[in-house]
Amino acid sequence: MTDVLVAGGGIGGLSAAYALATAGYSVRLLERSAEFGEVGAGLQLAPNATRILREWGLLDEIAQAGVLPRRLVLADAVSGDELVHAELTGEFKKRYHAPYVVVHRSDLHRILVEACRRAGVTLETGRTVERVDSTEDTAFTYCADGSVFESQIAVAADGLTSKLRRAVADDEPICSGYVAYRGAVPAEEASTAMPLDDVVAWIGPRCHLVQYGLRRGELVNRVAVFASPAYERGETDWGGPDELEEAFAGCGEHVRRSLSSLWRDRRWPMYDRIPVENWVSGRLVLTGDAAHPMLQYLAQGACQAIEDAHTLAAEAVKGEDWGTALAAFNSSRASRTARVQRTARTWGDIWHVDGVGRLLRNELMTSLAEVYRHTDWLYA
Amino acid sequence: MTDVLVAGGGIGGLSAAYALATAGYSVRLLERSAEFGEVGAGLQLAPNATRILREWGLLDEIAQAGVLPRRLVLADAVSGDELVHAELTGEFKKRYHAPYVVVHRSDLHRILVEACRRAGVTLETGRTVERVDSTEDTAFTYCADGSVFESQIAVAADGLTSKLRRAVADDEPICSGYVAYRGAVPAEEASTAMPLDDVVAWIGPRCHLVQYGLRRGELVNRVAVFASPAYERGETDWGGPDELEEAFAGCGEHVRRSLSSLWRDRRWPMYDRIPVENWVSGRLVLTGDAAHPMLQYLAQGACQAIEDAHTLAAEAVKGEDWGTALAAFNSSRASRTARVQRTARTWGDIWHVDGVGRLLRNELMTSLAEVYRHTDWLYA
Repeated sequence: MTDVLVAGGGIGGLSAAYALATAGYSVRLLERSAEFGEVGAGLQLAPNATRILREWGLLDEIAQAGVLPRRLVLADAVSGDELVHAELTGEFKKRYHAPYVVVHRSDLHRILVEACRRAGVTLETGRTVERVDSTEDTAFTYCADGSVFESQIAVAADGLTSKLRRAVADDEPICSGYVAYRGAVPAEEASTAMPLDDVVAWIGPRCHLVQYGLRRGELVNRVAVFASPAYERGETDWGGPDELEEAFAGCGEHVRRSLSSLWRDRRWPMYDRIPVENWVSGRLVLTGDAAHPMLQYLAQGACQAIEDAHTLAAEAVKGEDWGTALAAFNSSRASRTARVQRTARTWGDIWHVDGVGRLLRNELMTSLAEVYRHTDWLYA
Repeated sequence: MTDVLVAGGGIGGLSAAYALATAGYSVRLLERSAEFGEVGAGLQLAPNATRILREWGLLDEIAQAGVLPRRLVLADAVSGDELVHAELTGEFKKRYHAPYVVVHRSDLHRILVEACRRAGVTLETGRTVERVDSTEDTAFTYCADGSVFESQIAVAADGLTSKLRRAVADDEPICSGYVAYRGAVPAEEASTAMPLDDVVAWIGPRCHLVQYGLRRGELVNRVAVFASPAYERGETDWGGPDELEEAFAGCGEHVRRSLSSLWRDRRWPMYDRIPVENWVSGRLVLTGDAAHPMLQYLAQGACQAIEDAHTLAAEAVKGEDWGTALAAFNSSRASRTARVQRTARTWGDIWHVDGVGRLLRNELMTSLAEVYRHTDWLYA
């Protein structure tokens, strides 16, 4: 019997497995896909996550695969004007004791898989976890192929559509009506308007575009997000590529031109859930998107999953019984992640506001003298 | 033949008549009502107007009839929290070389009527001006009763629904869908929440309430403004008292309670017009609301009419021909009043914004360090 079973081999599951394995626990991780891998493009790691990755000895490799951006920039998508920026080097790095890093999602994932292997995690693919039952001191994990695994605890890292979440909450993901298109193209093919070591978000009425460099600046990563008119009309097929150009028609030239570099064969409708207080059922505990799926506007999905892993391992090594450790983990994480979930929603509203609200936002942002006031709670 | 005929005996017409009469011109003013008088309650006079009224020798009497408020306050109508204020004494008065005064509309009107009489203006009531024709050097003013008056120039001060404006523009007043209710009650009967020497606007989603003291603080003046749901539904009878309570249902207690002091038998639907560049046709010139009707959100309707009167007299006494004087007046006033008209609309949008726009506005206003940045263009 292993100490820990982790259900789900995404960034959250791998982080939890790695943190617990390096803390001295035996860990088995089950991934339902036939191979480990990540679909997607860029991913942002703020100091609250890179501080942990450095402690885990993984930051150098991640930073080498990615880019350490110079600035976070918010610009108006309609006028193209810069509204406000945060310098990510110098004062920022000193204040938060860690860098801001952007990295290809597949690079981070690969580094975590290799780290888990080195740490002795048993990694299994092709295992779809269906259910976890608990006795007083054992978690029984049931897979779709009939296999059953015993462990002291089971960690649900099965993402937004988590099946294991049913043990603690009878809820469903909440659709935002927004959809994301992504793309990463060689830098030499792209007109970028801004340096590739800037993370830029052009924010506009009901739409935005994020751009930054990946792989040492060789790739331009872009994410375009918009509110689907078809969704608003109540149609079930919504957010298709037919809506993409029109959604950005009122934006400036660079934003409109950038749409051509996006993949059209894949899209990401945006969901979250209402925060729940309890993530524990017997010997099962939720982490990452299974526990607190969030809209992407603070770029904290992966960061919060990494914080989860770090806290879970820290509570475990205190040496109390697992029940105490899971309760302490739950208690210390739920209020913080709920705040991130709620703030991400509000931040999205602020990005996408139209009319006089947009004028007020732009005036407010251009007059912001003290940017740290808005990031200390999250990054410090 | 008098030098000047003024069509309209409101605050704008009386101001023009007074300014031109004291500049040495013979002036006849025609008012369509049987008696001079003003319907309404309080009226705000910012330094750009009081500076002129002082030059005219009328400010002391006006200030004695009114109140010199201590502060202009913007508060959130929902929470009741103060957002930002401007001190109107001390630095403000020094900066703008004149005080901020609030006065009962009928007191200001009476003082202007008496001033016109003293200045030798011929004041006639019961004369409805229908049309002005011009020859090269004479204006012929035709009244509904068949009378015709000759003058060197005719000043159209016939307000929002100006008939004389037709000579220069083929337009109509534009309805904002907002309606105002007013009321002035004895101070001892009212719970005011704020001192009566504060001019307070509680601003909220699609509604606001303004409150200040009148008559040396003996009266509480209130104006409640809201967007009519019936207007939005396209109904012709809209903005009635049946809509009043519901429009403020989401507001804090003081705002809701204050509605009981409003007159229900009279209301003011809010209109403006798109700015036009030309106010002159032959020997006819538009002033005040006839030239540039505006929404009330900057409280500048009377102030801009007073500025008109001052500038018109100043251009006249330069001694050029009347054509040159009218053109110079038009040119110097039209761009400024157009800015006030446009800014008043935007200011209304800012006051009435809902959702995340309201959060942004409140954050922006509470963080405003330099209030003069927003008033210099208007008051200086």
